Amino acid sequence: MIGVDWGTSTFRAYRLDRDGTILARHENAQGIMRVANADFADALTAAIGSWFALGEDRVLLAGMIGSRQGWHEVPYLRCPAGPGELACGLAEVRFPAARVKLIPGLATVDAAGVPEVMRGEETQIAGLVDRIGGSGVACLPGTHSKWARIEAGRVSGFTTYLTGETFAALCEHTILGRMMRRGGGHVQAAFDRGLARAATAGSLLHHLFGVRTLGLFDELSEDDAASYLSGLLIGHELQAALPEGALVHLIGAPELCGLYARAIEAAGGRARIEDEDAAARGLGLIGGLAQWT
Amino acid sequence: MIGVDWGTSTFRAYRLDRDGTILARHENAQGIMRVANADFADALTAAIGSWFALGEDRVLLAGMIGSRQGWHEVPYLRCPAGPGELACGLAEVRFPAARVKLIPGLATVDAAGVPEVMRGEETQIAGLVDRIGGSGVACLPGTHSKWARIEAGRVSGFTTYLTGETFAALCEHTILGRMMRRGGGHVQAAFDRGLARAATAGSLLHHLFGVRTLGLFDELSEDDAASYLSGLLIGHELQAALPEGALVHLIGAPELCGLYARAIEAAGGRARIEDEDAAARGLGLIGGLAQWT
Repeated sequence: MIGVDWGTSTFRAYRLDRDGTILARHENAQGIMRVANADFADALTAAIGSWFALGEDRVLLAGMIGSRQGWHEVPYLRCPAGPGELACGLAEVRFPAARVKLIPGLATVDAAGVPEVMRGEETQIAGLVDRIGGSGVACLPGTHSKWARIEAGRVSGFTTYLTGETFAALCEHTILGRMMRRGGGHVQAAFDRGLARAATAGSLLHHLFGVRTLGLFDELSEDDAASYLSGLLIGHELQAALPEGALVHLIGAPELCGLYARAIEAAGGRARIEDEDAAARGLGLIGGLAQWT
Repeated sequence: MIGVDWGTSTFRAYRLDRDGTILARHENAQGIMRVANADFADALTAAIGSWFALGEDRVLLAGMIGSRQGWHEVPYLRCPAGPGELACGLAEVRFPAARVKLIPGLATVDAAGVPEVMRGEETQIAGLVDRIGGSGVACLPGTHSKWARIEAGRVSGFTTYLTGETFAALCEHTILGRMMRRGGGHVQAAFDRGLARAATAGSLLHHLFGVRTLGLFDELSEDDAASYLSGLLIGHELQAALPEGALVHLIGAPELCGLYARAIEAAGGRARIEDEDAAARGLGLIGGLAQWT
């Protein structure tokens, strides 16, 4: 079968063996927002038409491709939900060369009744569930960081933090950005200093102003300021998100997972960085549970 | 004498009687960042040259005009400092038609030793100190909200929150902005709802994502989303800043002070909106204490 993690800005396809082994992979920048005329069938054929010629006739899609802006909107499933529920909730779209099914996202509400949603992450987590057994905590850091609780093989609930997007907006569109020289890359000591600051008294909105004043008094260099701010925001996320005692399974880009692992350990927690192919594993697992005939 | 509150984006001048009465006022958009060739002497003459012709020969300047980007950088005074210390710390610049002096800003450090600064607000607070007597709490909301503690007639310390600037960056440069239709003005019920949300469990970074999901599930309209976000951010500022039991004196733009007053009362505090001429009162008071001869 073919599994595709089709997000807003990236298309990642895997040709999978019956046991989930990755036989081939294809990645391009045709995320759903970049597909001309929203002709997703055409984009799929252009990317992996050669795999259909090899006899593949089942395609499973995960991610924003199942959103209102994608090929077909698939309703969210309510938590708790795991690979079995996801496999039952697939939606099919018309495509000449193969059966094409879309994986639903997940929804839940937080303690105050405010909705939470994910699309794409549920598939990565499904790949993890299969490996770690029944229960645990998964963190998928990024633009919108997700923390998921896994119980009895299903996602029982999750919480989202707007960490990555807030970081970008503050760097690029506030006075804090004027304290920064970027491009020099990550500065570990500055990141650690931001983490330590987040653990002190005071709110995030106050700590943010410190990026300005530390720079003003030459206590934070322009090369360090972005890493410091990153540590500050991730530190505040962890203050709220890190469950005591649990091992946190990190899924995502290796560099970002490395930062989170360091931050989690600095906060007294334990972290393990999972390999990057969680999506492929989840696609293979859900595809194996699905009804194709 | 003449007093000028000369900030980054606005020039506000007052012609003051000996007892501080405002005889005339002039306001324009020649904030320090907009003065051609940084020729501040020229900008001053262009704005209020007619007052010099009436015999005024003393000018006192407050605000960012005393910063590195202004006419002349005046070092910050350390807290505690009040009108007397400010009057002793004036710096003079050369100007043909009158004596021109600049008021220093204030600096302090927070509990973790991170610097805090203000320039311009110290003068507005000086105007308040004179009226409220020895002690109290002042809040100057805005791009960078300032909360100052006043003891024995001096500013003993203060804390800054990056609230207004964070609001603008989130509205204009994140996915939250796409949930908003702006221009319809403030929606009180949505603002109150944001305040209530800020008072519930969960961190700011998580609450921010709720602006997205509430919109996605049609639980928050596009007309309401900006006011909701405003309430969320101001609510989080108050969670950290509002001292129990104290009366908070609000200084600033009337509409924004109105929002803060409502938020403070919703959080169980007491607020009073001061009139807008705190800067003129502070300028007159400090000018009266200064050595001009």
